[in-house]
Amino acid sequence: MASNEVLVSGEDLKAFTAEVFTGAGLAPEDAEIEADVLVWANLRGVDSHGVLRIPWYLSHVDNGVMKTRPNIQVMKETAATILIDADQAFGPVVTTMAMRRAIEKAKNTGIGWGFIRNTTHQGAMGYYALMAAKEDMAGIACVAGPPNMAPHGARAAGVQNSPIAISVPGNRRGPLVLDMATSIAAGGKIWLAIDKRVPIPANWALDKDGNPTTDPKLAEILMPFSGPKGSGLAIMFECLAGLMVGNPRLEPVITGKQEINRHIQNSFVAALDIETFTDVDGYKDEVDKLVDGLKALPKAEGAQEIFMPGEPEDRVFQDRTRNGIPLPEGTVDSLKAAAERFDIPLPAGL
Amino acid sequence: MASNEVLVSGEDLKAFTAEVFTGAGLAPEDAEIEADVLVWANLRGVDSHGVLRIPWYLSHVDNGVMKTRPNIQVMKETAATILIDADQAFGPVVTTMAMRRAIEKAKNTGIGWGFIRNTTHQGAMGYYALMAAKEDMAGIACVAGPPNMAPHGARAAGVQNSPIAISVPGNRRGPLVLDMATSIAAGGKIWLAIDKRVPIPANWALDKDGNPTTDPKLAEILMPFSGPKGSGLAIMFECLAGLMVGNPRLEPVITGKQEINRHIQNSFVAALDIETFTDVDGYKDEVDKLVDGLKALPKAEGAQEIFMPGEPEDRVFQDRTRNGIPLPEGTVDSLKAAAERFDIPLPAGL
Repeated sequence: MASNEVLVSGEDLKAFTAEVFTGAGLAPEDAEIEADVLVWANLRGVDSHGVLRIPWYLSHVDNGVMKTRPNIQVMKETAATILIDADQAFGPVVTTMAMRRAIEKAKNTGIGWGFIRNTTHQGAMGYYALMAAKEDMAGIACVAGPPNMAPHGARAAGVQNSPIAISVPGNRRGPLVLDMATSIAAGGKIWLAIDKRVPIPANWALDKDGNPTTDPKLAEILMPFSGPKGSGLAIMFECLAGLMVGNPRLEPVITGKQEINRHIQNSFVAALDIETFTDVDGYKDEVDKLVDGLKALPKAEGAQEIFMPGEPEDRVFQDRTRNGIPLPEGTVDSLKAAAERFDIPLPAGL
Repeated sequence: MASNEVLVSGEDLKAFTAEVFTGAGLAPEDAEIEADVLVWANLRGVDSHGVLRIPWYLSHVDNGVMKTRPNIQVMKETAATILIDADQAFGPVVTTMAMRRAIEKAKNTGIGWGFIRNTTHQGAMGYYALMAAKEDMAGIACVAGPPNMAPHGARAAGVQNSPIAISVPGNRRGPLVLDMATSIAAGGKIWLAIDKRVPIPANWALDKDGNPTTDPKLAEILMPFSGPKGSGLAIMFECLAGLMVGNPRLEPVITGKQEINRHIQNSFVAALDIETFTDVDGYKDEVDKLVDGLKALPKAEGAQEIFMPGEPEDRVFQDRTRNGIPLPEGTVDSLKAAAERFDIPLPAGL
């Protein structure tokens, strides 16, 4: 732990965060969901998607982008699918709802697929994929939002570095949680480089004029991984999530018809019920055996260990659940400001 | 066209290929499907997945791996899903069947999801995703087969460079067809380097001992794109397709319990019915507008054009449909051998 960090327990931080969002106007049960999603990210070491975002969320409550009492509506529904209009709800509130509905449907039809239209920031997408894995299903969750990445061959933003998360259950070795953006580096890694005052590799990002830059402070446009692959996935995710719900997020910005609103996005979640197709215990054993097999392969030069999707984050989770979450000074200051604003006590240790 | 190539019409090549596979024992309607999938790849310039594979397929008919009269069985079925055991059918025969069933289901439930167990080589996966796009649906198709790629951090094969294809319809600008492997370079690009006698980049592949190699003839183990991303997707595709149908393809080989059989794989296909969620014409217009917008972005240095997923292949398709498919000498020799074996006339021009 760095000297300017303080340790706080996950449970305390969660209770505090829920109180903050209740203070901001969310229904208590919605505030709990929001807190659970944010603190889960902190527990896994994905601090870029954790409580450091509290002031950012509060400012979007203040400017009306994030609605604390949204009119969430089911627009379409079939035996296996649901399309929910989020009315600019807090992302976690509507995304957990969509995934719960997808899981219910999957119990009956083998698969459940939920589209979410017009939501705001959803936090770490792995959370929702993992919801399915905890119910002995495979889970998928994906976002399509406004442009922040150059499509392959371009020197301007045209696609989003849309993340996709996939999770499956195991026994000893599971669940696996893959949670990846379609850019070479997630935005959070660039923020980290700013904090650490180190340059970024030249292929990570472009500056506002479309020139490659190694200065993280000038990085404005992310680059897709593997050229046409990351770029192609990002284009298809907009087609699968954004256009499918009649809410395009790229073209109106690219063509200047709409000012960019970075905070409105579309999404889909899916659950596949393992029991419908094969024996659940057998499945989980096979996941364990696969992981055992992969981890025992001869290691590449310089590799200490062969990690499975989500395994490094799971180690941090184990550690931070036991020992607490280290929060840097800046985040502590934000939490203090929120505590003061809503007149609520800080978590122990702060 | 190279001097040692001959031109053959797509229609003639398709009729010939169907006759070859009828000769090999496939039912005529199955032989037509196989021919359509192979020649489609040639028409799109993806020659690695075209008729050059005929002798390879015939050898696998001869050794019993590919069954010409398989006992294809529906093992599980729900309103939105189907699980088909292919009994080592020719991949295209069972995969078109699974996608047709997924499309039918999607008309009723918004989504149709098909698992395919125990199939053989399926050809270019974009073909099946495109089947859905032609029915005004979004299509997805994915393979999970035996190991040929090193997971991130390993110096041995442990995962497959599983391809995923996604297709959506447009009007002027569609359909889009993304068809990508999870390796940096597909195996076909390495074969091409052998043919052209040029080295490959050092990050594409390892030799049999797990050392990076630039000699395409020594390349045995593919490398995942973007490290943990390509690797993670490949692991999750095995969990989604292989373990879900109770037919693991990685672990038994990794641990030496099973000799590698490169030709048995599992797969899933999915269709999402656009009309269930939004207006179909509006959707296709939005795809067109998105493509127009993306293609008009300022180009990166050295880029002549910003290409959409499948666009380069579609240009080749337009050209080869009009002007014929150029076949290199080696492929022509293979076709002549097949013609002789089954006593059938060669396509005009050969």
